[in-house]
Amino acid sequence: MANFPVYADLLLPERAARLLKEGISPREVLFSQKPAGSALIRAEADARFVTAEIAFGQPDEAAVLASERLRWIHISSAGYTRYDTPEFRRAAQARGLIVTTSSTVYAEPCADQVLAFMLAQSRQLPVALDTRCTHQDPRWQGFRDTCVPLRGARVLIAGYGSIGRRLVELLRPYEMEVVALRRQAVSEPGVKVITIEQLPAALGNAQHVINLLPASAETAGFFSAERFVAMAPGAIFYNIGRGDTVNQEALLAALRSGHLGAAWLDVTSPEPLPDDHPLWREPRCSITPHIAGGQAGEKEALVRHFLGNFQRFLKGRPLQDRVI
Amino acid sequence: MANFPVYADLLLPERAARLLKEGISPREVLFSQKPAGSALIRAEADARFVTAEIAFGQPDEAAVLASERLRWIHISSAGYTRYDTPEFRRAAQARGLIVTTSSTVYAEPCADQVLAFMLAQSRQLPVALDTRCTHQDPRWQGFRDTCVPLRGARVLIAGYGSIGRRLVELLRPYEMEVVALRRQAVSEPGVKVITIEQLPAALGNAQHVINLLPASAETAGFFSAERFVAMAPGAIFYNIGRGDTVNQEALLAALRSGHLGAAWLDVTSPEPLPDDHPLWREPRCSITPHIAGGQAGEKEALVRHFLGNFQRFLKGRPLQDRVI
Repeated sequence: MANFPVYADLLLPERAARLLKEGISPREVLFSQKPAGSALIRAEADARFVTAEIAFGQPDEAAVLASERLRWIHISSAGYTRYDTPEFRRAAQARGLIVTTSSTVYAEPCADQVLAFMLAQSRQLPVALDTRCTHQDPRWQGFRDTCVPLRGARVLIAGYGSIGRRLVELLRPYEMEVVALRRQAVSEPGVKVITIEQLPAALGNAQHVINLLPASAETAGFFSAERFVAMAPGAIFYNIGRGDTVNQEALLAALRSGHLGAAWLDVTSPEPLPDDHPLWREPRCSITPHIAGGQAGEKEALVRHFLGNFQRFLKGRPLQDRVI
Repeated sequence: MANFPVYADLLLPERAARLLKEGISPREVLFSQKPAGSALIRAEADARFVTAEIAFGQPDEAAVLASERLRWIHISSAGYTRYDTPEFRRAAQARGLIVTTSSTVYAEPCADQVLAFMLAQSRQLPVALDTRCTHQDPRWQGFRDTCVPLRGARVLIAGYGSIGRRLVELLRPYEMEVVALRRQAVSEPGVKVITIEQLPAALGNAQHVINLLPASAETAGFFSAERFVAMAPGAIFYNIGRGDTVNQEALLAALRSGHLGAAWLDVTSPEPLPDDHPLWREPRCSITPHIAGGQAGEKEALVRHFLGNFQRFLKGRPLQDRVI
């Protein structure tokens, strides 16, 4: 009978560690002696690793492939760039190693960040929080006229994965027309998925363009001058993906000309932008410092997500966020 | 056969006026010669009024009761204080006059304003929009730890009507525990409605306390020092109701002591607060200038809502937002 000892190399506060231990009991957690402090930093190699059948954290790629007992690794981040090489994929597939990520854990706060931006735009929060006026003040009627309700709006999501899926759930009460661009153009309930050929028309139709694209050679500068020009006048642009997927000069020009209604950026290139960057001074451009994935109780959420997959693994069911 | 000429005394931009005409065609709209510019201002009397069977706008109370033909009035605001007197109610009921309001039209932006506040709090927008930092900056980890996800949160809504109902729809994807206080303690799907006797326990349990109470003798100073003390440590307080339902000194004390996590106010007493009011300087207090009901396309939304009720009226179905 399989024993499934679990090796964990992420630094867990006591409550999260207890949750993990209780969740896999009576099986044992082999905690790394040298855990990684952040989900994004690779942990150091550890002798106990070789006895594990399951690894949870940021295990070293070479150690993973060298292990004879490992059957499944669950990465404690949404991205998995280090494991996403042809060599690793080939080796993992050849020996039946399963790789899952924690992308669902980060999908929730990232989708919240998008909706927070959309509602802050709809309710004009940056200006409204900064204005003291009465009903008699002409600025007050201005607020009423610029508060554009989200209900029934036309939305385009570029890069449709777990964040996009959660966002679509959050947007459901708004009865929007949601179009999503992704490589595999397979539609899902409530979302019309399009291919790159259909993008120009979709850009011209959307009132909200939400960039969730990951960084890659393919997506660098994806939002180009041409694509900003193709957007509908007054469209709102959101970037929760990666800064280098956007041509920032083109974005600035589209804001300055008044073609774009506003921009909301959680990511830029570089981060932060230099103090003299003109996007800081652009009145309809709002920037947060790459915090969309942040959440209180992050480690516990990671453990809970792992435990959900652990139960599925025991029962032989398909795992969440499987990438290999 | 009933003809149902409609008298409209609100000032409508061309598109909204056309929508109204087309929507009731082949019946006729009798537009007032002296329409009210704002939904909140009473229109002047007009001779054509006496021929109407339906009135849409802010008709004069005395003229309404003097009319022999009126069967239904649809008020173009959410509030209907002028008509909410024992005398008017008695007279209207005696002759079978129906009174409806536009509260659903204002419920949507008001519920949006609440969720905008909740998400801006959850994602720490006021601070995040004002901070330039990198992943290495200690403030950055601070953001992660203070971004408290909304999912599964415990919410108390004080004053549960059409805004609260729409808010509950918007919150559904967050799988929250929603408790609502209202006079008639009848629960609805997804909401546990409580009475005033159950309020202290509910205040101690909620992470988000949302004040949607209307102004009345009964609700003046409702959120008292005692009730702020009864709230759970770290609770977030939102006021989209009316300023005078809150004891602002008690609110300030609860913020200063650190007992409350934050406050988000769209309404205050007075409006705006004087420039030297300490709530302006309270770091975890965010204030907008009573704009929750504002929305672009307000007049068209009012016309659409009226037309929905007009169709129900023709078919003898129950009308939305009926108050008498």
